[in-house]
Amino acid sequence: MTDFTHINQRGEASMVDVSAKAVTTREARAEAYVRMSAETLQKILRGEHHKGDVFSVARIAGIQAAKQTSQLIPLCHPLMLSKVAVDFEALPESSQVRIESLCKLSGQTGVEMEALTAVSVAALTLFDMCKAVDPAMIIDGIRVLEKQGGKTGHWQADNGANE
Amino acid sequence: MTDFTHINQRGEASMVDVSAKAVTTREARAEAYVRMSAETLQKILRGEHHKGDVFSVARIAGIQAAKQTSQLIPLCHPLMLSKVAVDFEALPESSQVRIESLCKLSGQTGVEMEALTAVSVAALTLFDMCKAVDPAMIIDGIRVLEKQGGKTGHWQADNGANE
Amino acid sequence: MTDFTHINQRGEASMVDVSAKAVTTREARAEAYVRMSAETLQKILRGEHHKGDVFSVARIAGIQAAKQTSQLIPLCHPLMLSKVAVDFEALPESSQVRIESLCKLSGQTGVEMEALTAVSVAALTLFDMCKAVDPAMIIDGIRVLEKQGGKTGHWQADNGANE
Amino acid sequence: MTDFTHINQRGEASMVDVSAKAVTTREARAEAYVRMSAETLQKILRGEHHKGDVFSVARIAGIQAAKQTSQLIPLCHPLMLSKVAVDFEALPESSQVRIESLCKLSGQTGVEMEALTAVSVAALTLFDMCKAVDPAMIIDGIRVLEKQGGKTGHWQADNGANE
Amino acid sequence: MTDFTHINQRGEASMVDVSAKAVTTREARAEAYVRMSAETLQKILRGEHHKGDVFSVARIAGIQAAKQTSQLIPLCHPLMLSKVAVDFEALPESSQVRIESLCKLSGQTGVEMEALTAVSVAALTLFDMCKAVDPAMIIDGIRVLEKQGGKTGHWQADNGANE
Amino acid sequence: MTDFTHINQRGEASMVDVSAKAVTTREARAEAYVRMSAETLQKILRGEHHKGDVFSVARIAGIQAAKQTSQLIPLCHPLMLSKVAVDFEALPESSQVRIESLCKLSGQTGVEMEALTAVSVAALTLFDMCKAVDPAMIIDGIRVLEKQGGKTGHWQADNGANE
Repeated sequence: MTDFTHINQRGEASMVDVSAKAVTTREARAEAYVRMSAETLQKILRGEHHKGDVFSVARIAGIQAAKQTSQLIPLCHPLMLSKVAVDFEALPESSQVRIESLCKLSGQTGVEMEALTAVSVAALTLFDMCKAVDPAMIIDGIRVLEKQGGKTGHWQADNGANE
Repeated sequence: MTDFTHINQRGEASMVDVSAKAVTTREARAEAYVRMSAETLQKILRGEHHKGDVFSVARIAGIQAAKQTSQLIPLCHPLMLSKVAVDFEALPESSQVRIESLCKLSGQTGVEMEALTAVSVAALTLFDMCKAVDPAMIIDGIRVLEKQGGKTGHWQADNGANE
Repeated sequence: MTDFTHINQRGEASMVDVSAKAVTTREARAEAYVRMSAETLQKILRGEHHKGDVFSVARIAGIQAAKQTSQLIPLCHPLMLSKVAVDFEALPESSQVRIESLCKLSGQTGVEMEALTAVSVAALTLFDMCKAVDPAMIIDGIRVLEKQGGKTGHWQADNGANE
Repeated sequence: MTDFTHINQRGEASMVDVSAKAVTTREARAEAYVRMSAETLQKILRGEHHKGDVFSVARIAGIQAAKQTSQLIPLCHPLMLSKVAVDFEALPESSQVRIESLCKLSGQTGVEMEALTAVSVAALTLFDMCKAVDPAMIIDGIRVLEKQGGKTGHWQADNGANE
Repeated sequence: MTDFTHINQRGEASMVDVSAKAVTTREARAEAYVRMSAETLQKILRGEHHKGDVFSVARIAGIQAAKQTSQLIPLCHPLMLSKVAVDFEALPESSQVRIESLCKLSGQTGVEMEALTAVSVAALTLFDMCKAVDPAMIIDGIRVLEKQGGKTGHWQADNGANE
Repeated sequence: MTDFTHINQRGEASMVDVSAKAVTTREARAEAYVRMSAETLQKILRGEHHKGDVFSVARIAGIQAAKQTSQLIPLCHPLMLSKVAVDFEALPESSQVRIESLCKLSGQTGVEMEALTAVSVAALTLFDMCKAVDPAMIIDGIRVLEKQGGKTGHWQADNGANE
């Protein structure tokens, strides 16, 4: 089981030693989808015309969560994000909201877990705010879109995961 | 936009007033799927025969996250969970891991957000531990399976969301 | 020094024993002011016509902070807020933003510290978002407006603190 | 609304990208005042002659809060403070306690929000410990006194804000 | 392995279901010792004659930690402590500081883990503050002294553990 | 009392200024013992043959706690651990479990408090999971074994503390 970096020779969990890794600029983008009824999406969009706190609250939740990643995911290193952004896109034709995050850092470890945590918690917050009218929503397609920096260089997901 | 319980008349976010709600036993179950390569799943399963820390670490992460839900999701009420369980099931035929959570509480608000947070963070932890060998994994199908207690009584999801 | 409930006979800090206190509905309102240049206030207000994320972000920060009060203030009891709301009012004639919070709980201790923490952190967040254009802002007049419930019953502040 | 660094072109909140900012030594001082009855201040001071836990508890609360700033204020970057100090000064002639904080860091962002958070939470803690005898206290004059380091260099507040 | 309440039939960790447990008043006392050089203890005690912040800081740290127990210990239930106290006793003849905590709660689970966490973190804080002069200190004898309430009723430790 | 680095000239607590300290690789190892009945240890060991979640849960708790050290211990600096490991060793002849931690960092302050916090919380978690069958367990011998890096260079504890 030695291929998993977080599991040592004896099969025990440990936090990978990154002491010797280079400090480089690292960046990751992730996405998530929230599938809902057409009616629920319309309610969100109509709200947005006026004040639109649904996306606004979910955005803040996602940004805050990215900063707490190392407290949520046991083997993640604490790190100092230099940038977090979370965006929302309504997809009325498929009754979905698409969420995308971007995290940046100058440090010794990648930030894809931070980007994934940001979209996940933004999606959960969207769910929380709409669940009274639509408890059957589904959060889907949480994945890394792209990451850059570090030893592995640039990595990009194949297209079309959610189609 | 008054259908959304977390948005007031002026379109502003607020935490719903549950002061007058009855204290009842409430329960919720949620699920999530992690899609991965057949090879990655095999590595996890081979590990599990021996010590199996991958599921074990993800289980603890999910349980801990359920307890932090009100700190992650801005409009969730703080509450005192009386039970949290997180389980894993390998689905080799579809190269997925299925995660299911159960949360219980005797209180004034439902616990579906806690159940959803538990499976989401367990899934993210699984992702973290396997990402070095399989960065293209996808977290899918996060939804509430069933909830009980409170004014709305028993609610159950339709089958087959992930098929 | 025995008049201070958080200091024992020997002058040492301790958390007051509320085990024997009655569980009643408790409520508190607090306020804070952020004094700024007329120009800064105009910028916030012009923004609000469109999307208005400044108040929206500060509102979420205040609500989240209310839930973390017992982790911030050493001798506060953990408690389960049943309602938190934070509101903003622009006072262009005096170049101020007024922030008001409401916290509710059915429990054994009052919630004025939660209401005060909500307006304080909302004010700090407003400061953070405007500090690049106006580093000389001042946060003023943080006080309890009213509290209800518990042994001391109803208490109301005198008017005019900030005038 | 593009003057506000935390609001992007579309009026949405985001965390400013500091990846390219220079790592310099940064320092900030902030202050806050707690106005109380003469009697309350006397009780604190008499206590201090002996054991004086009121200032001691508030000092620790302020130091701890400075370290949690990025969890309280949504768009603040996580950072690694290299020094935090919080001091108290009794002003019997005006029945106030003055609180001053100093925060230092070698990093990419300023530390004025940390300094402001430290004095704010120290003031709230003072309030909490004295509220049983004086619920009408007012926290006032929270502001940055001085900051140093970074692109904007040295900035100093005008005198006399609280007079 | 079914004797361990936190391990289910399949040997997996889970949080015990306390939903059906009676709400009773529960109380626990715990202790810890910090062994140090005679010189270090003298320095603490001489300090205490004047301002004595060492015990004061450690007391606050212990109280704060008790409130965070369920975030530190994975299978602990979140609960609402109604009382926490932490006390220190210098034992010059054996060059030790003895720390004792008391936690109270009206709830469904015992509070011995909270009492143990309070003395442990108070001891670690003492260690932190003295480590520059005495890095060889040892924290010893952390145990439950007594607990009351719940199904098991009253339990008391045998004497003399640390002698 | 000026020998204690966390206490200033006036006897007040403050966080040491490390701004000018060199960034070096720092490392610390700590240990703790949990004394229990022979029967309890046997139950843990029998469990481990199969799934062994007791050590696994305690390991994760210790790793997570190391990352939260600066939130638990008031005068500790926040820092970014580059490696945390926690190991367990059953000592059947003395009916004890020995816990050892290793923390690493490239930074301006030592990591012995992180290593001590890791073993302490791992020990508390072990206690929590076994307390239903053995409430008289004792956590003992928490100490630094070795630390490296920084101005003081290499420091090593004398042997035999727990014998």
